[in-house]
Amino acid sequence: MQPIASIFPTPGEAAAAAIERRLRDFAANRPAGERLPSTRVLVADHAASPLTVQRAVQRLVREGLVETRPGAGNYVARRRATQQADFGWQTTALGAARNGADGIGAAMETDIASAVAMHSGYPADDLLPTRLVRAALVRASRTALAVDRSPVAGLPELRTWFASEVAPVGSSAVVPVSPDDVIVMPGGQSALSSIFRALANPGDAVIVESPTYWGAMAAARQAGLRIVPIARGSSGPSAADLDDAISTSGARLFYAQPHFANPTGALWTAAERAEIMAVIRSRGVYLVEDDWAHDFAIDGDISPLAAEDPDGHVVYIRSLTKSVSPAVRVAAVIARGPALARIQVDRTVDDLYVSGILQAVALDVVTDPGWRGHLLRLRAGLRSRRDELARQVHTHFGPDALEFVPAGGLNLWIRLPDGTDTREYLRRSREAGIMVSPGHDWFPAEPTGAFIRLNYARARPERFAGAIGTLAGLRFPATSTGIG
Amino acid sequence: MQPIASIFPTPGEAAAAAIERRLRDFAANRPAGERLPSTRVLVADHAASPLTVQRAVQRLVREGLVETRPGAGNYVARRRATQQADFGWQTTALGAARNGADGIGAAMETDIASAVAMHSGYPADDLLPTRLVRAALVRASRTALAVDRSPVAGLPELRTWFASEVAPVGSSAVVPVSPDDVIVMPGGQSALSSIFRALANPGDAVIVESPTYWGAMAAARQAGLRIVPIARGSSGPSAADLDDAISTSGARLFYAQPHFANPTGALWTAAERAEIMAVIRSRGVYLVEDDWAHDFAIDGDISPLAAEDPDGHVVYIRSLTKSVSPAVRVAAVIARGPALARIQVDRTVDDLYVSGILQAVALDVVTDPGWRGHLLRLRAGLRSRRDELARQVHTHFGPDALEFVPAGGLNLWIRLPDGTDTREYLRRSREAGIMVSPGHDWFPAEPTGAFIRLNYARARPERFAGAIGTLAGLRFPATSTGIG
Repeated sequence: MQPIASIFPTPGEAAAAAIERRLRDFAANRPAGERLPSTRVLVADHAASPLTVQRAVQRLVREGLVETRPGAGNYVARRRATQQADFGWQTTALGAARNGADGIGAAMETDIASAVAMHSGYPADDLLPTRLVRAALVRASRTALAVDRSPVAGLPELRTWFASEVAPVGSSAVVPVSPDDVIVMPGGQSALSSIFRALANPGDAVIVESPTYWGAMAAARQAGLRIVPIARGSSGPSAADLDDAISTSGARLFYAQPHFANPTGALWTAAERAEIMAVIRSRGVYLVEDDWAHDFAIDGDISPLAAEDPDGHVVYIRSLTKSVSPAVRVAAVIARGPALARIQVDRTVDDLYVSGILQAVALDVVTDPGWRGHLLRLRAGLRSRRDELARQVHTHFGPDALEFVPAGGLNLWIRLPDGTDTREYLRRSREAGIMVSPGHDWFPAEPTGAFIRLNYARARPERFAGAIGTLAGLRFPATSTGIG
Repeated sequence: MQPIASIFPTPGEAAAAAIERRLRDFAANRPAGERLPSTRVLVADHAASPLTVQRAVQRLVREGLVETRPGAGNYVARRRATQQADFGWQTTALGAARNGADGIGAAMETDIASAVAMHSGYPADDLLPTRLVRAALVRASRTALAVDRSPVAGLPELRTWFASEVAPVGSSAVVPVSPDDVIVMPGGQSALSSIFRALANPGDAVIVESPTYWGAMAAARQAGLRIVPIARGSSGPSAADLDDAISTSGARLFYAQPHFANPTGALWTAAERAEIMAVIRSRGVYLVEDDWAHDFAIDGDISPLAAEDPDGHVVYIRSLTKSVSPAVRVAAVIARGPALARIQVDRTVDDLYVSGILQAVALDVVTDPGWRGHLLRLRAGLRSRRDELARQVHTHFGPDALEFVPAGGLNLWIRLPDGTDTREYLRRSREAGIMVSPGHDWFPAEPTGAFIRLNYARARPERFAGAIGTLAGLRFPATSTGIG
């Protein structure tokens, strides 16, 4: 298993690595005292910044392979005996790996500058409230929060805002969520990790829709949970399936994304919401409602199930990371009853508290008068991008590739010809300069077909036509099994 | 078990809660249409800000208990039927708790404004590079990092800096740490959590010094590990004890703070370093070196054991949270060989990546020309604070209360009369307006004596004399067992 860093190098890292390799070869194969290629040459050859070159040289200097003569340049150093590292003992110390790097979805790969990035889970900068974020950072820099420790549950004002976002619909008889029911989290993934660790024990079952968010499955596996998939219908799963799965698996948790489920974009119908909540209540289990796309509704607003939950059956996750800024890692868990304290303890033990700077910036942005207007522009931007990508998919992949056009979210879920080997297809699309998220990352078990997820919120829309034409033109490699 | 939030309310939260209680009682017991106490009255009675009052009122308005008549004030609302929440079902769903709120050290409690805060693990603002942090935030607000997603392993430049901080001493024959060996973490506690989860399996043993950092024990328990304590000598633990503990427990991890161990301030001698590393190597286990006080050395610099480790036996933790800003939660793990990838996968699954804003701020501050000067002023400030507190302890508690004056760190470890009930002593010191960290938080098993940890880096030094006089003057309550 390689370090993630080497799995997903950034373009800058790639250039730096190339330069370092070249200088190491040079230092290894040339006599001591010979002069290294000049910075100017290296900058030109590797399209890198002088800073990158300088860093590579400095590293070799630290390792004693190169010596710098001030004003005169860099030279191959006299050899110095260095031990060879031997990590063999770690094989015994570590034992077998529980969870490999392949647990990390390809959606986490850093964009390759030259490629069309349709793999990512994040929107493009022009869909973010960039101006508001920058202004909020400057304001935060002047406050005491810049150097203070935040309370473990989060800033009271931010907890109040998260609670107010889950107000009951109309004149509901449900007691509204209170700020005391809110725990601020350093991102939605942390929320998942803490919920799974806190509300279940290793060996317990957790029920998920199939396909579902790869990160939720990775967090569940890390918590030692058994993943029990149930089929997704054309919108949500069947309540009867859920009821059976609970009784046979003994699961106490059902993880789901009722709105624009990632990766498919499916939306639960009102009937499904009611039937599923009835099962949840009658079985005495938790629904972990991952409202990941709350700010990405296109054809209508979202009303979370958590807003109509009187008895704490819904454990609700809301993240601002994708809609405010990927660098402002702030999310919230809303839970009621004993579950709340269990989740709080797990998160506090895992990393104590969330940066007050990031909480202040998030609060500043979402309470700024400009936030509402931003959300309207975001909705319009997502709509035109979604419709353009759907049009291109329909044109190039045909009418059956797209089961439906999702009413929100960031992605389209596209069916490839049956029996396509999505791993090989992924390699070929990368060679063609297009980054996609392969379907197999999203299935708890064997994929039921060959799929790719395409993000319409990141790459420039004017590149959609060309990219989809290229993807559709690739030869579709067949699997041995005939299943994607 | 109560939510942490209610265990550790901030002063602001306390006032807000009092006001809300008062208004709830009012709304519950007075007829609909009766006018609420005015904001002016509430501000005066509860020494709270108008904003706090306004928020409490708004919450009751959202809950339908109070109605606002614009310009005319707030009134008790007409009753509305609301269901009573019933969380009883969760008792069955959750089962027994593994890990209670008492796993969280009292050191995490937010400072009470009026009290002398000697409990905390963090330095005062005047010991932080506040000006550098604010300037770095403003600079970061202008960069692309403000809205970008960071690579999962962290920003290359920051990884390079962390690696350079662990350079071998003199012309060592050890291959220096490379930036590729560095994983950026959202704080030291996250590093501990990921190391314990990634390098051991539930049920495995981890060896710790006794006493040791409560957060490390909480993280180990959360990972399902058995904690095996070994006694601390006057400085470090005995290598023979460590060897015995490894062979009898089968532990593959030894967690330790070789420099200014928290809470005692003990420093391993050169001989102990060599003997312990010899055991670590011969037994084929990991030393988890928590270099928490790297920037808090007072009487001499720190050279991490990780700098002299050829074969990846040392897994090294360095955090900037305490020395740059508690709001800039950035740390690093340095590990070599297969351990690195295991830790990276765990952290990525737990929360994907660290905010690029916080990484940029941390890098900006530690590479600023002003950083070195700040560290020198910090050292001088810590020295005078340490010496003043030690003087006061010697004067008021007598010569035996302090075993030694630590050469670095933020704390003194003070022995109370044998048989003192530290829980009751903690309550009395709080009533007397002094916050301390009780010894029992820091012992893996029964405390071997009655201790408190006093932080000399947070409260104002001119308050030390009065606070220590008060603490020494408190009656020392006896335990039933006669052990602290």
